[in-house]
Amino acid sequence: MTTDENLAAVVSTTQGDYRVIVGRGVIDDIGAEMTAAGLSGRAFLVADVAMFPTAVHRAHEALERGGFATNVMTLELSERVKNMETVQQVYQWLADQRAERIDTIVAMGGGVAGDLVGFTAATWLRGVPVVQVPTSLAAMVDASIGGKVAVNLPAGKNLVGAFYQPRLVLQDVDHLKTLPQREMAGGWAEAIKHGLIMDTDLLDTFERHADDMQTLEGDLPVKTIRRSVRIKAEVVSADEFERGDTRVLLNYGHTVGHAIESVSGYGKFFHGEAVAIGMMAAAGIARRLGMIDQELVDRQRAVLKRYNLPVTVSDVTADQLIAATKSDKKTRGGTIRWVLLEGPGKATTRRDVQDEVVREAVEEVISDG
Amino acid sequence: MTTDENLAAVVSTTQGDYRVIVGRGVIDDIGAEMTAAGLSGRAFLVADVAMFPTAVHRAHEALERGGFATNVMTLELSERVKNMETVQQVYQWLADQRAERIDTIVAMGGGVAGDLVGFTAATWLRGVPVVQVPTSLAAMVDASIGGKVAVNLPAGKNLVGAFYQPRLVLQDVDHLKTLPQREMAGGWAEAIKHGLIMDTDLLDTFERHADDMQTLEGDLPVKTIRRSVRIKAEVVSADEFERGDTRVLLNYGHTVGHAIESVSGYGKFFHGEAVAIGMMAAAGIARRLGMIDQELVDRQRAVLKRYNLPVTVSDVTADQLIAATKSDKKTRGGTIRWVLLEGPGKATTRRDVQDEVVREAVEEVISDG
Repeated sequence: MTTDENLAAVVSTTQGDYRVIVGRGVIDDIGAEMTAAGLSGRAFLVADVAMFPTAVHRAHEALERGGFATNVMTLELSERVKNMETVQQVYQWLADQRAERIDTIVAMGGGVAGDLVGFTAATWLRGVPVVQVPTSLAAMVDASIGGKVAVNLPAGKNLVGAFYQPRLVLQDVDHLKTLPQREMAGGWAEAIKHGLIMDTDLLDTFERHADDMQTLEGDLPVKTIRRSVRIKAEVVSADEFERGDTRVLLNYGHTVGHAIESVSGYGKFFHGEAVAIGMMAAAGIARRLGMIDQELVDRQRAVLKRYNLPVTVSDVTADQLIAATKSDKKTRGGTIRWVLLEGPGKATTRRDVQDEVVREAVEEVISDG
Repeated sequence: MTTDENLAAVVSTTQGDYRVIVGRGVIDDIGAEMTAAGLSGRAFLVADVAMFPTAVHRAHEALERGGFATNVMTLELSERVKNMETVQQVYQWLADQRAERIDTIVAMGGGVAGDLVGFTAATWLRGVPVVQVPTSLAAMVDASIGGKVAVNLPAGKNLVGAFYQPRLVLQDVDHLKTLPQREMAGGWAEAIKHGLIMDTDLLDTFERHADDMQTLEGDLPVKTIRRSVRIKAEVVSADEFERGDTRVLLNYGHTVGHAIESVSGYGKFFHGEAVAIGMMAAAGIARRLGMIDQELVDRQRAVLKRYNLPVTVSDVTADQLIAATKSDKKTRGGTIRWVLLEGPGKATTRRDVQDEVVREAVEEVISDG
């Protein structure tokens, strides 16, 4: 097992507790960590082809060294193929290999890998153990923790899925070294979001150390990722199924963010980029409702820009975005539950936002290109 | 709500507790029962077309009367179409109707409906409430309780699924009136199995009242179904995920039973018929191991025959059946965990059964046609 220093959080759920490990080179410990988590049997490593060959081979060796006879499958993954057809390819492979209930599926890659492979594990033989090895920043600080897994349908994103908790989450910060800059920015958006909604100290850290953070060198980025992970872990432990008033706060920026992704066509924006613009729209709503002042709106804009995130969108209309927010699957009885800031590090939800306020705030994030 | 008399059991699980209602005409109470279970929103009734039109209309009316705006989909269901393609048809319908997280899916039909619609509910929007309305005897006493849902892959039966508990199980014994005799027999097999493995009084009742039972008239059949339901509910409450030593006992007769279904081609035997033959093979093993005497083997054979169940199989070889048992998905590290009787109403598991003993017992249930 890794040193306690690398233990970012323990997530507590109805399906069991699990550790989230964050550090440099921790992939080499995966076998020992899996054993410590009570896993045995064989390992089925399903990796995004982007991690092939170096990172996949290193993980494979670490699994074998840890006593797990391992089969490897690589997949070319993207939001476009995050669907049941790809899941069925993995099922077929598992059937061919006779993967059993005591075996473990290891999901290695970005958010798409975690979602798709996690869903496959949730449903193969009514659920087999899954270990998440997120390799993008967005997946590390957000998607890999909490058990939300899903695939897309033609009718919409993430319409099919499960709440299925991993048995272990292992995050090797060295995996981020080869990540494209825009993809990193999308990840920072989710981490900064954690600061904005729940943790002013984390927000301060992002503001004060923007340059050091983005080099990924030294202790600061690792510690900051751990801190962001811990926030996500606490939220999930408190509100596993998003039935309460806590987990929904993580959707800050997501109502308009999803609308931007939907209207722009998936692929134009990274998810975190769309969320950054969505957070600006949400901030505009909160300011208009008198919940926050202009200073916090400007502060949010500044920190997002420091991490190379967009704060406006072009080539879409307010009508398009507003229509798209209304078809969001979280819509309940027709009213949208907005996540809005009440102050730095403090968020709440509101259902009674007037259409006119939404329209003004959305128009404010549309630029003329 | 129905009277307490109709409450067969309360199942207790990590996903919540739920009531199992068994009675005549109880479908008329479905709306009130759903409200009592904390459900609101709309209802999406997915029914086997065999229940159309009379039973579907009656359920639809009861839902609307109970305050649930209801959409209805009927499907031609069979083991052959219990697959992801059919699930995707239901997803598409739910997407078209904009079914939301607070809405409830009602699964009405036999075991295939419960499995397929239950799996759809488990995965739609990461899980929406599901109410099981089993209309076959096998589904009533067995499959509808306990949250096992699944669909088939080309590679094998039930390879894809979940443990996903319903919020309510409503069993209207009047639905059995139109069931073909062979299908009823398959259901009795599962209920008799409950007696054989756990409840000598239930076994006695089946033996002493075989004629009255099969008329389905009067109180006795209803009470007996309730009692069988209660056994299943207790087992599930004690061992929700089949990780302990309890739920596995319900697989009595299933190792050879599954092999018979697989080798004969699905469709030749009803599941319960194959299980009846499988129980005879298991009894042969237990007798050879000195766990039970010939008298209990004969007693088991007699009660199965009284309910028109087969006790031998033709047109297959012992080699075929033994090979099929070894590809069963419950196989763990290559050894089969046999469920065997130790006496009437008492079962246990054994992993150390010699191939030769299995072969002799299997040969004993093969007739020359």
